[in-house]
Amino acid sequence: MERITVQVNKPYDIVIGKNLIDNAVKYLSQFIQKRKVLIITEDNVNKHGYLDKLKYSLENHCENIEFLSLPPGEAQKNLKNVELIIRYLADAHFTRDDVLIALGGGVIGDLVGFTASIYLRGIAYIQVPTTFLAAIDSSVGGKTAVDITQGKNLVGAFHHPVCVLCDTSTFQSLPTDIFEDGCSELIKYAMIMNPKLLKELIEREQPLNKESSDLPEIIYECVKMKRDIVLKDEFDQGLRQLLNFGHTLGHALEQRSQYRISHGRGVAMGMAVFTKMAVTQQLIHKDIYTSLIQLLSEYHLLSEKPSYTSDQLINIMLNDKKRRTHQMTTVLPNEFGQCRLHVIDLNTFQQNFEKEWEQYEVHQRY
Amino acid sequence: MERITVQVNKPYDIVIGKNLIDNAVKYLSQFIQKRKVLIITEDNVNKHGYLDKLKYSLENHCENIEFLSLPPGEAQKNLKNVELIIRYLADAHFTRDDVLIALGGGVIGDLVGFTASIYLRGIAYIQVPTTFLAAIDSSVGGKTAVDITQGKNLVGAFHHPVCVLCDTSTFQSLPTDIFEDGCSELIKYAMIMNPKLLKELIEREQPLNKESSDLPEIIYECVKMKRDIVLKDEFDQGLRQLLNFGHTLGHALEQRSQYRISHGRGVAMGMAVFTKMAVTQQLIHKDIYTSLIQLLSEYHLLSEKPSYTSDQLINIMLNDKKRRTHQMTTVLPNEFGQCRLHVIDLNTFQQNFEKEWEQYEVHQRY
Repeated sequence: MERITVQVNKPYDIVIGKNLIDNAVKYLSQFIQKRKVLIITEDNVNKHGYLDKLKYSLENHCENIEFLSLPPGEAQKNLKNVELIIRYLADAHFTRDDVLIALGGGVIGDLVGFTASIYLRGIAYIQVPTTFLAAIDSSVGGKTAVDITQGKNLVGAFHHPVCVLCDTSTFQSLPTDIFEDGCSELIKYAMIMNPKLLKELIEREQPLNKESSDLPEIIYECVKMKRDIVLKDEFDQGLRQLLNFGHTLGHALEQRSQYRISHGRGVAMGMAVFTKMAVTQQLIHKDIYTSLIQLLSEYHLLSEKPSYTSDQLINIMLNDKKRRTHQMTTVLPNEFGQCRLHVIDLNTFQQNFEKEWEQYEVHQRY
Repeated sequence: MERITVQVNKPYDIVIGKNLIDNAVKYLSQFIQKRKVLIITEDNVNKHGYLDKLKYSLENHCENIEFLSLPPGEAQKNLKNVELIIRYLADAHFTRDDVLIALGGGVIGDLVGFTASIYLRGIAYIQVPTTFLAAIDSSVGGKTAVDITQGKNLVGAFHHPVCVLCDTSTFQSLPTDIFEDGCSELIKYAMIMNPKLLKELIEREQPLNKESSDLPEIIYECVKMKRDIVLKDEFDQGLRQLLNFGHTLGHALEQRSQYRISHGRGVAMGMAVFTKMAVTQQLIHKDIYTSLIQLLSEYHLLSEKPSYTSDQLINIMLNDKKRRTHQMTTVLPNEFGQCRLHVIDLNTFQQNFEKEWEQYEVHQRY
């Protein structure tokens, strides 16, 4: 069992280990005693019994515990569900003392975190991530959001959980492709700020999988990296944008495909295209691009190039939160295991992207 | 022209004076240069020409300026309008650099502030209050919210404006009853923390009206009081709850009457009932209650007692944000011009309120 503290205004712990849900009360009792608890989860998670285990561990220790289960999928991360949860909380007379628990992947975590941030101007919530991706990325750092038709995560808030309980046993039931989506974020961490991790990932004999014995260690490493970045730039004014490597295009692909392209696959293609852009701009040697492509391939993260035109994608990317009125912040590799922010004007961004996107299939053959 | 600075994380100024809108660019240029600006206003404000004046002053100084005008009334402060504005912003590619302006009363200010707080996880907004009530209360302090069926202000955020431009000339066009609604908040400030102001209000020969020459001074006093409270308790954990004197019942009356009872009238009745409660509990001499009733009557703030039962009102008050799981914070006068917070258990609150509400009509005859 590992514990990482995030020293924000109201510090909170991220607890990482096996079978934590079975004994959840040990970690969460201080947040639920004499409180009303609403667990929000999704049908797949529910099916694997994690909800029952969590309820069983907590139910005699809080005032009462209820749950809502939503269908799976990014489409659930919408304003309608925010309103649904809020009306539920108001009808059940939840107060600022009470607490929400997000039991699920990034969709549930983002939705619950955002809802908690606006109900009564903010109530407490606990993250219990059940996917590798949520464990290493979305459950940490206090960014919460929902999607609107015009774009992903365009509505949200900064609202930290009071605790993150990361039970790695829950990954056992993940479909392989969902696990691999998390590997895309893992590769992202390595690419932006960890040459040692990048080297290890490239050189490992067996690709990481949900049975790997070093999974908790790797989660610990990623969470620490994210924690350190968040502490330096809690409100996403600079450094934190590094974490968005591959995401501007990734989000556009997710959205344009109506989320048929997953977050991990979208980000993977985003990393590939923008790393190629760094080669074109002679920021890095093409070997780094080749290594990245090999790594992404090992984890089955590079899908067919979709037929969207660069104009279609640019139009979506212009709604990205990282855009300023006349400029765009892009994240590009500038060394093996290191990325940098580049603020460029919108025209240059459009031209660069257009060229890269048109040539993308060719260069994938590296 | 007066200027008050609020020293929060990102300090901002409240500028108070006559005919400020005609020269708005003088105060706002730093927030709008090279930015997109969306003014959100309401049809009544629009009718009196303030929107045109504001646009005229700003239009050559920002990238572009557009507006949305909503019908008047509390019913507009809802999640549907939040979504409407958000979709407008996303369609117009508003970025984190761009800015919203709330031109109107408390409804517009609360709605715009909340929307600004969640679009792209927070963009800048400017308050231009056009009612006395918004000027002295809702436009200052960063509390933003919308209503849901279950209660007033149950969904919201803490999000400070980048500037408040308080043009007292706009009050000239206020209907008398809307101006008087603001006087209810003025009397509240006097009751909770300003014996000198309370004495002045009681002793003045002419009740304050929208032509009174000392109006800017009085606004300045109120804003300073609010600023000082907000700085001591930005996130409403204690002291700031004093500002809610009369509001728990006031909100319940507004909501139960579907907002036919105005905020000012609701708060006035709330102050009357809770001041009477303080007399019953022997916290204060009944002369304070008598003075309050006289003052509220002078401003035509005491309407007929509505026929709602105490149970109906208690049920709504239980959804108040000030309630904790087992306790309620009530604000009661404990001296002339001074209130205190009393944390009491829910049963005691219910009993006290029931008694006071049943007897309320009788005691109004004081």
